Amino acid sequence: MTQGKFIVVEGMEGAGKSSAIHVITDYLSQQNISFIQTREPGGTKLAEQLRDIVKSADHQETITQETELLLMYASRSQLLANVIQPALANGTWVIGDRHDLSSRAYQGGGRQIADEVMNTIADVTLKGFKPDLTLYLDIAPSIGLARARARGALDRIELEQMDFFERVHQKYQSLAAEDETIVSIDACQEMSKVHQDIKQALAQFVA
Amino acid sequence: MTQGKFIVVEGMEGAGKSSAIHVITDYLSQQNISFIQTREPGGTKLAEQLRDIVKSADHQETITQETELLLMYASRSQLLANVIQPALANGTWVIGDRHDLSSRAYQGGGRQIADEVMNTIADVTLKGFKPDLTLYLDIAPSIGLARARARGALDRIELEQMDFFERVHQKYQSLAAEDETIVSIDACQEMSKVHQDIKQALAQFVA
Repeated sequence: MTQGKFIVVEGMEGAGKSSAIHVITDYLSQQNISFIQTREPGGTKLAEQLRDIVKSADHQETITQETELLLMYASRSQLLANVIQPALANGTWVIGDRHDLSSRAYQGGGRQIADEVMNTIADVTLKGFKPDLTLYLDIAPSIGLARARARGALDRIELEQMDFFERVHQKYQSLAAEDETIVSIDACQEMSKVHQDIKQALAQFVA
Repeated sequence: MTQGKFIVVEGMEGAGKSSAIHVITDYLSQQNISFIQTREPGGTKLAEQLRDIVKSADHQETITQETELLLMYASRSQLLANVIQPALANGTWVIGDRHDLSSRAYQGGGRQIADEVMNTIADVTLKGFKPDLTLYLDIAPSIGLARARARGALDRIELEQMDFFERVHQKYQSLAAEDETIVSIDACQEMSKVHQDIKQALAQFVA
């Protein structure tokens, strides 16, 4: 049986990830490709518990940035072992709402955790596993955050200051530029053009 | 104000850690030294949630050894930032039931996670922080486990095979031998002699 493919949608708050995922799932359905969807952090019972802990804004205790980092990778380890890898081995494609690139951008870029620390923890957790294709929706933080704020309450990480999001954005852009499996899409365009770019990237990938 | 001291009790299942902690708290009370007690994993609300996750034996999903490792250090990061360091800064001593040496022994030794991975994660989490004194209760795994089994249900980690515990024991012994802040105590002796050794180590430390 052919191994499934792992396609990840990445980007900052308000970049349009949910909408992009719809475009992908519609496309795969038309091609009769079976798939599942995941989100990170989360996606297993244990990982969803960790998601609740790390995203909750009402803790009475300080969440250290190291705890945030370690819980993101613990969640990822659970999802990989229990959901993503079994699905791929079974020939099912996996469409991920965020994956390792988010940790690189938010914890590495935003929190300024050193690259060597990020690399060590990613290596021990992922053991070289990576998405086959990542669609990175690029948007200026000010525009994305305005969109995210317009749709409701923000979680603990979304409440960070603007310089944090500027660092996240820079890290996303620099990592996207150096990895040919990451396709950058200009998410500030009209939505119809964004969707057209996504379909084009998918068509090239599937071909 | 004088900084408090951090004293940790370490050892395998059935080594007599609880009893040793009583000896220490009695001793400090007699010396009019104020202290708090901690346990790992756990010790804050968030860390206790992680403890429940990592020790529960009834998960329907596989807990990867990387998740176990990352949750142990996330718990430690929360305890350090929210409890241990504020207490020490306030002049209060902290008596810990397990700390980093347990992760070195169980995840490093038992699970055979590479030293460089352990060092990187410990460094980013602890930033050089370490106990002032560790009392390591040394016991042969077969004896300790027999004691632990006699007192009731075992948790997920305690249900491991004997070769796991032999590796944990070897790692404990080798780490204790190379660190002068760790005092090894023969926990196979009569209890009165074990307690005498603990008091002697405390008297030397406090002097």
